[in-house]
Amino acid sequence: MSGWDIKKAIGHKFKPYEVNVTNSELILYALGIGFQQDPLYKPHYNFTYENAEDFKAFPTVAVVLAHRGDLAAMSIPGVPEFNPMMLLHGEEKVEVYAPIEVDTTVVCQESVIDLQDKGKATVLVIETAINDKESGKLCAKIVTNLFVRGIGGFGHKGTTKNHIPEAPKTPVHASRVEKTTPNQAFIYRLCGDRNPLHVDPQMSEMGGFKVPILHGLCTYGITARAVYEQFHKEDPMLLEQISGRFTSHVFPGETLIVDMWKEGNQVIFSTKTKERGLIVLKGSCKLRGQAKM
Amino acid sequence: MSGWDIKKAIGHKFKPYEVNVTNSELILYALGIGFQQDPLYKPHYNFTYENAEDFKAFPTVAVVLAHRGDLAAMSIPGVPEFNPMMLLHGEEKVEVYAPIEVDTTVVCQESVIDLQDKGKATVLVIETAINDKESGKLCAKIVTNLFVRGIGGFGHKGTTKNHIPEAPKTPVHASRVEKTTPNQAFIYRLCGDRNPLHVDPQMSEMGGFKVPILHGLCTYGITARAVYEQFHKEDPMLLEQISGRFTSHVFPGETLIVDMWKEGNQVIFSTKTKERGLIVLKGSCKLRGQAKM
Repeated sequence: MSGWDIKKAIGHKFKPYEVNVTNSELILYALGIGFQQDPLYKPHYNFTYENAEDFKAFPTVAVVLAHRGDLAAMSIPGVPEFNPMMLLHGEEKVEVYAPIEVDTTVVCQESVIDLQDKGKATVLVIETAINDKESGKLCAKIVTNLFVRGIGGFGHKGTTKNHIPEAPKTPVHASRVEKTTPNQAFIYRLCGDRNPLHVDPQMSEMGGFKVPILHGLCTYGITARAVYEQFHKEDPMLLEQISGRFTSHVFPGETLIVDMWKEGNQVIFSTKTKERGLIVLKGSCKLRGQAKM
Repeated sequence: MSGWDIKKAIGHKFKPYEVNVTNSELILYALGIGFQQDPLYKPHYNFTYENAEDFKAFPTVAVVLAHRGDLAAMSIPGVPEFNPMMLLHGEEKVEVYAPIEVDTTVVCQESVIDLQDKGKATVLVIETAINDKESGKLCAKIVTNLFVRGIGGFGHKGTTKNHIPEAPKTPVHASRVEKTTPNQAFIYRLCGDRNPLHVDPQMSEMGGFKVPILHGLCTYGITARAVYEQFHKEDPMLLEQISGRFTSHVFPGETLIVDMWKEGNQVIFSTKTKERGLIVLKGSCKLRGQAKM
């Protein structure tokens, strides 16, 4: 139990940082999650071409604005030191409140909101609030569950719980096939997450993977895009919330199959690799308004 | 002849500007010209992964550091105003003197070095010198020939001539097949050249193309990469000079065939589209040392 101080850890705020939201940031993210694979598909220009009539951010870009600050050092008062290589990304929830606008500055504030003792592991729950600097308006809130192997036993079971629905047994309402490119991780990482695990075979081997694996948040973005394109294409801001659990890894170049079930204003999804038939991400999207096919 | 003042125009220096050479700039360019299509091909990490043992710039990155300043406005004392849409990129020569190093600042100085009267058109010859800011050392010099339709008749035939060799009639020494991706222009443009001609069908139609065309300098970079990979792979700085003439356009997604002939320390190249059999770029590379196959 040495090194644990739950009261000190929960509520710890990391140093806030700012990001200038340039059109390059937004476009790179959009390309990174597979927008504009057909260069002539006009609806995608809104995310990939700064002069498009209605150029805007795809809302899950919030996840790459997040996690750029001190959090990366993984030094948390009241939590014993651990090797960041022992960390797995468990879940990610994005709550979308207002558009992240191009050519603005956002302020990102990350804090520890919960710790869950899993015996020989710990779930670290981080919240990131992204606010527009000028207006102070909340644009997005992100809740990230990080699974840390090798530390635990402090006895606190935790107070937060993210509900991840199981995929229904009924036939899917829609299914989209999304091919990733072999160099997808090389493009996606330029959005912010430079973890070498995703490109460097030596590092991925240390992490237990024979070859580098795609960023979980890239799969997450591709899945969010699939839901958007299938059910609610008129406005990305109709994606009110997306919540997902990472259940396995994806190798760059694999094909993702995003199965979707609509239930009122909710879309339950399950994303699997076509090549290996493994479910890699499951969760749900809450929409503003009914899901339209 | 109104608006012409050759003495004023030739020698005109544009306002110098600086570029911070980040690893993102270098990686984006490398991905934009097709490095790392195989994510496990280790020799490419040197250009696409900032932690690679020997991370460095591919030397033709100079062309995307160039042309970011006042030149874009195409307002030149002594040259009549013209519509930038009437401009075609004719030729590009890069002379490589020293590596462009990551995490440095370079100063780019562009100037008009020649004007050539072609009757109803004008060739505008621009030189860009790229120097390291700290040491003052010259890294690269670029000579760009721009063909401007609709203005001419000022009687000056010009003083510069870039020698572009014809492809030999002998069998090629090597040929490389380079597939571009449909979204190649969307990625490449993030390196700097945001001309809408390359992504916006409305704009490309105004330029006389049914659909957007790939950046000529992207084809140029792909060709330089092909020569490097075929003949002189141990060190990209062995590319001493590359000179090419754009002879036709490429549609993103097309396959390029780069035919190469070695002649001592020179490689003559001719790049064509596989789909339409058209030669799109021809020229030569001068190498430091003999071409090795």
